[in-house]
Amino acid sequence: MILAANANAQGSHVGEWRHPDAWDRPASNLENAVRLARIAEAGLFDLLFLADGNGVRNLDKPDLFAATSPSDRPAVFEPVTLLSALAMVTRHIGLVATTTTTYDEPYAVARRFASLDHISGGRAGWNLVTTSNPGDALNFSKEAHAPREDRYARAGEFADIVKGLWDSWADDAFSQDKASGRFLDPARVHALNHKGEHFSVAGPLNAPRPVQGHPVIFSAGQSEMGKELSARTADCVFAIEGTIERARTLYADLKARLPRYGRRPESLKILSGVTIFVGETEAEADALFQALEDLVSPAVGLDYLSKMIGHRMTGYALDEPMPDLEAEHVGPTGIGKAILGVARAEGLTVRQTYKRILPQMAGNLFKGSARQIADLMEEWYRTEACDGFMIAAPVVPTGLERLIRLVVPELQRRGLFRTAYEGRTLRDNLGLPRPANRFFSEPA
Amino acid sequence: MILAANANAQGSHVGEWRHPDAWDRPASNLENAVRLARIAEAGLFDLLFLADGNGVRNLDKPDLFAATSPSDRPAVFEPVTLLSALAMVTRHIGLVATTTTTYDEPYAVARRFASLDHISGGRAGWNLVTTSNPGDALNFSKEAHAPREDRYARAGEFADIVKGLWDSWADDAFSQDKASGRFLDPARVHALNHKGEHFSVAGPLNAPRPVQGHPVIFSAGQSEMGKELSARTADCVFAIEGTIERARTLYADLKARLPRYGRRPESLKILSGVTIFVGETEAEADALFQALEDLVSPAVGLDYLSKMIGHRMTGYALDEPMPDLEAEHVGPTGIGKAILGVARAEGLTVRQTYKRILPQMAGNLFKGSARQIADLMEEWYRTEACDGFMIAAPVVPTGLERLIRLVVPELQRRGLFRTAYEGRTLRDNLGLPRPANRFFSEPA
Ligand SMILES: Cc1cc2nc3c(=O)[nH]c(=O)nc-3n(C[C@H](O)[C@H](O)[C@H](O)COP(=O)(O)O)c2cc1C
Ligand SMILES: Cc1cc2nc3c(=O)[nH]c(=O)nc-3n(C[C@H](O)[C@H](O)[C@H](O)COP(=O)(O)O)c2cc1C
Repeated sequence: MILAANANAQGSHVGEWRHPDAWDRPASNLENAVRLARIAEAGLFDLLFLADGNGVRNLDKPDLFAATSPSDRPAVFEPVTLLSALAMVTRHIGLVATTTTTYDEPYAVARRFASLDHISGGRAGWNLVTTSNPGDALNFSKEAHAPREDRYARAGEFADIVKGLWDSWADDAFSQDKASGRFLDPARVHALNHKGEHFSVAGPLNAPRPVQGHPVIFSAGQSEMGKELSARTADCVFAIEGTIERARTLYADLKARLPRYGRRPESLKILSGVTIFVGETEAEADALFQALEDLVSPAVGLDYLSKMIGHRMTGYALDEPMPDLEAEHVGPTGIGKAILGVARAEGLTVRQTYKRILPQMAGNLFKGSARQIADLMEEWYRTEACDGFMIAAPVVPTGLERLIRLVVPELQRRGLFRTAYEGRTLRDNLGLPRPANRFFSEPA
Repeated sequence: MILAANANAQGSHVGEWRHPDAWDRPASNLENAVRLARIAEAGLFDLLFLADGNGVRNLDKPDLFAATSPSDRPAVFEPVTLLSALAMVTRHIGLVATTTTTYDEPYAVARRFASLDHISGGRAGWNLVTTSNPGDALNFSKEAHAPREDRYARAGEFADIVKGLWDSWADDAFSQDKASGRFLDPARVHALNHKGEHFSVAGPLNAPRPVQGHPVIFSAGQSEMGKELSARTADCVFAIEGTIERARTLYADLKARLPRYGRRPESLKILSGVTIFVGETEAEADALFQALEDLVSPAVGLDYLSKMIGHRMTGYALDEPMPDLEAEHVGPTGIGKAILGVARAEGLTVRQTYKRILPQMAGNLFKGSARQIADLMEEWYRTEACDGFMIAAPVVPTGLERLIRLVVPELQRRGLFRTAYEGRTLRDNLGLPRPANRFFSEPA
């Protein structure tokens, strides 16, 4: 079972930062990031994952900063710089940074991740996104976010170029032989000379081939196009599904797409996003859940609900049933519709509705004792709802520490999780082979 | 006196990597980079500097790799990722990375350097270049490098945006007050909403204001436009002049440009690039010089000379006088012309000519005993040829170690160089004030 930890040293719940256990001053706090990385590595996690965006939303709702996804937060590190730093204080854990194909250049992305892979000794991963926040366009001299089809067409070509650039040099190209004076073998370099729809990129990359051959590629798109891109080009997918049935459907769907690209099912790992509330007992987990809820004022709750459903809820009575909003009121995400559906089906009040959605920023939610959590994880894993989990702790660091102290040993007893790192690179630990160089055969 | 060290863990001389004292396997070698950073910090250097480019030249001349400037080398780290890593193994030394304004985005550059500044606790610097290698264009879906005027127009607007984004948040914007639940003060953020000739950038940046307010800005342009950009917007200039007279002229020229931008002479520091051969005695320095020369075969020497003058020299007899080449044969840089001029004036042979230019990759050359070197440095400094030096060691690490062991104490005795770091940030150590935020007054 693969376990990934959110590397944002800040919990996923909007009330989290105010909790007494939460680290003080979470805004761009390096010390916290270092401590979190060390905790996750001591817990034998496969990797740290950093979501990212290039803009700030909700400035009009400053109390929401913690409810916005990490990619909308106003005070974060740039992911690749942070993970380069964390590479120096860790030895085993994978380091996966989000970078968009929509507002960056393939040569630059290939370089940065090759560099991170060399710095970390083969622990780098790239989470390829096409950018979820349309407003980011305005930071890159664009009038608007390109439509999804265009973003994905660009993303596909982008990923191919990046992989081609990583293959610029054979693994043995840099002989660096002092005696003969031969530094590199000019027969072991390939200039890409890519010319395509969106890009023309000459190459070669000015970096030796990455330690892993290719840093591990993650993808998180959930649309049809997103899924096709993952099936064709990704090593790992982060999926967010609220129920085990839906997760199984997505799992089967993604794995079934692989043969068309000549790939085997085990070549794509699917990680399910989940926030885990664990206690020594079920009651302790419930109490933490309640404590966080109490840190969210009704004003913040209403702002948050408004954001999620795309309709301004300020002014509605908290303890009246949710109003019956017309479909046109709700935002474009589909999430808004789902929330209103649940509220209607269960007859929730406004207050109950916002409380229901507060803790679920990372999608799914597991809550209970260590045994209950391990049971859920085992069930998801064994019934092919996922190959592992992308875990957000409700409170950082205690949520992660408690998970490592209580749940990880239970998973280990059941033979579901490692008791020591298997290999040297992220690929080794994920059970993914090192890709062959498309331009050169292996050294003799 | 400011002292900066080249952070490329590889010497400036084309024969260097073959020298017995040179580190083995210099291609993207992290361990060497870490050792070099620690050596420079132990020597109280102000900063580490990383040149950069986004392409590989001279693939047809593989033996030249070490003669190409660091920005053309085929196997280097991406500078910001490397310096983020080095931030974790150093405490005082400044970390200056080169990034081009021609093939990058101001929002992205502002983020990466803000992030590096937070990670390093205020030690980041940005060396702004417009890219010297025209071939880099082909890696960024451009048919050709834009003309210098266009590149500098873009660069000026780019730098203004970056500074504006660094000022997005007042220094006290992120109150992060758990008790009140107030994370940030929405009155202390400024969205840039820049709309200009080359860019439109909304902002705000998703990072708190950098520790230094603005990371230190370096610039290395030597053209009229380059000098104007430096005078308007840079904190430091790297200059390369081969004689003290020319360095003084440039120094006076640059400083005289400042009042027009409302700046005082001491607000711009001028560092002179120099390769230093130092020995316990003058004879020892000469011997090292000779040893390096002997590592350069005639074939490599001719390739190198060909590259520098822009005319293919293979086939010319080594011990005949340099041919009288027509001006149209020589490259566009002006360097070629200068080399031919020296060869003609001094009646050098082909072999003597390539030997003359081999060690001067970083421009100027000082050679001698510790006292002779200190005398030269003092003269340059006291007679306003520079405010300090950007030092390339002929052999890494021994060249730098010897300099620190022999020359630094001599400079300290003369009261020219620090005996301990003065401050916490790179600005502190350079004697540059922290810039005010253009949008917010200081916290009450
Ligand atoms: C677990 C997960 C993590 C994501 N992380 C990011 C992110 O860091 N940055 C981002 O711009 N989008 C992120 N996304 C959004 C996706 O890139 C994508 O835009 C979204 O899932 C919608 O899918 P589609 O673009 O294929 O329609 C993430 C999505 C998921 C499911
Ligand atoms: C000390 C020094 C360091 C430089 N470093 C770089 C570099 O790392 N990358 C680069 O593209 N150009 C570099 N340059 C080149 C300058 O950016 C610039 O292109 C060159 O000095 C010519 O000046 P001009 O562009 O103003 O004509 C450097 C120049 C000097 C003098």
